[in-house]
Amino acid sequence: MGKLLRNVAVVGAGVSNFGNFPRKTNRELWVEAFLDAKNSVDNGIDQKDVEALFLGNYSSDLFEKQGHLAPLMADLVGLAPKAALKIEDACASSGVALRMGVLAIASGMYDVVCVGGTEKMNTLSTAEVTDVLASASDKHTEIFGGSTFPGLYAAIATAHMAKYGTTPEMLMAYSIKAHNNGALNPKAQMPLTVTEIMSRRIRRAKEKGISIPLWADEYEFLKSNYNPMIAYPLRLFDCSLITDGASCVFLAAEEVAKRYTDTPIWIIGSGQGSDTFALDDRTTMTSLNAARVASQQAYKMAGLGPQDIQIAEVHDCFSIAEIIAIEDLGFFEQGTGGKVTQEGRTALDGEMPINTSGGLKTKGHPVGATGVAQAVEIFKQLRGEAEKRQVPDVEIGLTHNVGGTGGTAVVHIYRR
Amino acid sequence: MGKLLRNVAVVGAGVSNFGNFPRKTNRELWVEAFLDAKNSVDNGIDQKDVEALFLGNYSSDLFEKQGHLAPLMADLVGLAPKAALKIEDACASSGVALRMGVLAIASGMYDVVCVGGTEKMNTLSTAEVTDVLASASDKHTEIFGGSTFPGLYAAIATAHMAKYGTTPEMLMAYSIKAHNNGALNPKAQMPLTVTEIMSRRIRRAKEKGISIPLWADEYEFLKSNYNPMIAYPLRLFDCSLITDGASCVFLAAEEVAKRYTDTPIWIIGSGQGSDTFALDDRTTMTSLNAARVASQQAYKMAGLGPQDIQIAEVHDCFSIAEIIAIEDLGFFEQGTGGKVTQEGRTALDGEMPINTSGGLKTKGHPVGATGVAQAVEIFKQLRGEAEKRQVPDVEIGLTHNVGGTGGTAVVHIYRR
Repeated sequence: MGKLLRNVAVVGAGVSNFGNFPRKTNRELWVEAFLDAKNSVDNGIDQKDVEALFLGNYSSDLFEKQGHLAPLMADLVGLAPKAALKIEDACASSGVALRMGVLAIASGMYDVVCVGGTEKMNTLSTAEVTDVLASASDKHTEIFGGSTFPGLYAAIATAHMAKYGTTPEMLMAYSIKAHNNGALNPKAQMPLTVTEIMSRRIRRAKEKGISIPLWADEYEFLKSNYNPMIAYPLRLFDCSLITDGASCVFLAAEEVAKRYTDTPIWIIGSGQGSDTFALDDRTTMTSLNAARVASQQAYKMAGLGPQDIQIAEVHDCFSIAEIIAIEDLGFFEQGTGGKVTQEGRTALDGEMPINTSGGLKTKGHPVGATGVAQAVEIFKQLRGEAEKRQVPDVEIGLTHNVGGTGGTAVVHIYRR
Repeated sequence: MGKLLRNVAVVGAGVSNFGNFPRKTNRELWVEAFLDAKNSVDNGIDQKDVEALFLGNYSSDLFEKQGHLAPLMADLVGLAPKAALKIEDACASSGVALRMGVLAIASGMYDVVCVGGTEKMNTLSTAEVTDVLASASDKHTEIFGGSTFPGLYAAIATAHMAKYGTTPEMLMAYSIKAHNNGALNPKAQMPLTVTEIMSRRIRRAKEKGISIPLWADEYEFLKSNYNPMIAYPLRLFDCSLITDGASCVFLAAEEVAKRYTDTPIWIIGSGQGSDTFALDDRTTMTSLNAARVASQQAYKMAGLGPQDIQIAEVHDCFSIAEIIAIEDLGFFEQGTGGKVTQEGRTALDGEMPINTSGGLKTKGHPVGATGVAQAVEIFKQLRGEAEKRQVPDVEIGLTHNVGGTGGTAVVHIYRR
């Protein structure tokens, strides 16, 4: 059929603080996000109203050696004996959980559900985290071949550079924009502009009496050894963060949504696609077909096109990922993503603000929580509750959540 | 609402061989199950008809160090770029995936979906597998306290013995029944009766000139050191197997089901519940509340009661689990599960045949594949295709799939 039999709205949304929290496990992070979402529901919501929990998580198995996370998280917030399930689609886990929550309500089974995401990542060394994340790529070809995600996305980036003339400066423009937005998000892991980070470095060097270059601007700083190369052309500031964090939304069927709020945010489009698992099996490296398929489905369901979207949270696990995302979603012409970013057209005051939250780069990327965290940002923006990073008068927003190198992509469209 | 807006049927079902296959990964197992299911569709089914894959898997992360399994499995069988997602609810993963497939069709989003399950477990030593499985229990209390699943289910068993007078002989009667059924299942991991196993032991001992007791019957054998104690009262033959295997079904909306077969099997009831995660937080150890909640939902949706069910596959991860299951599902009075098993009332020719497939004990328990494998058995029984283990004239069947010690339970009811 391809169309939902009932309409579904987000009636509450919240996140935990994002960061590196040595004393918190998924348990504390999740409860924090759940309570933040619960407190956001205008007319209140009680656990007894909530009929099921759809939880996104990538790998509490490898990060925390704790499986079967969904009933544990349900129990912690008083949802037992309601149905609880975990959905895993790598970094798209909670974006897909959101879609399943929507479908579950549309099916007639439930009227009100909770959708969350959580990931505790800072249990391991950076090298080990990279290894855990790499398990979302093809073990038999990519991992055995020595690839990790920075390497795979570097290959995507060089392909985009070769085909379209995208430059390292365009990638840096993305980082600067991401930090400008993240600096306005109090829940972000790294709420600092690149200029602030650069100034801190200079100040600390002076305090310690260390000789340090006097960078003329952010670009000079980002081209220096203080922004080390990870996998050409991707430097440290091209890579998202390793984050502990959780996210939560409450969904309600149209028939009951008004009980909870006068300002529900309707989910008017949803799409999901997959792709060949290994990058080398694809016909192109400069576009993610799963994202194209998912967005086409979502646009069709919403009866809208890219030109109707006013604001979007896209999956910027690396700088190049945002550049390709804004092309795949149809916001800008294929190959121009880097150029328009450098021109400031995706900035907070640009024609098409992208990742007002700061994105995965500065808000942080607790992988299993990211998809729902994107929905939380759009919920707040469309309700005019995004405080210092509020984009004026936005009514239609979109989220784009990717797993792996695009083996999974899921897109949602929201309307106030 | 609590009722589905569209009817859904199973139109094809298959499994891989179950066993210990050193040369196979989840990839080979899954393709084998997918093709078995595809070949079972009377009028044929093409990949282009299938709109999404719902995959159950517990932990390819810990067993194979391969995450993001759903798009990988979709790619392998030619389903990309269709939506693909993995659902994890411990040993109930694919039972819950089945429920999500049903809901996704009922929502109007899809007409035809594939639901599968897969688990490759024999990558690790038995002790390590036990450790991986234990991660589905509460790390902070149960695991740190030294518990594993045999230990937790042993606590459940002793509670049942203390409260109802259930005896070790009743547990042994379960094992004998399970092996009698499994011996008739060509895909089972251990297709041998207890008598056959006992006779083999005696024959081998004679060949090697080893002195061995001459057991009078199966019970004497099961009470001997040849059936070692794992955690009192559970011995080796009370525990399910460590299995590599996969399972697959195709679901279709009522509007299109007849394209694929004249004998669809309708899913007329579906329920899912959760419970406090740690066993010690519960008010009872002799019943799983999640299973009671799930079965009540499923019965209500189907408009049926326990007395209407003619055949069931229940989650017998341990002998005591089957005994409690047939009580929780209302087939027999609370506390009588052991007694009725010993009386033969759940045997293949009994009044209420349970686990005609051989169950998790002899068919095998590839944990993420188990829920859908149960549905495959009911599909075959209701269509009269269960060969030597066919129960005559069955029209209504049930599956009962549990995660952990009952943190999750999901129940489905099927009608020819």
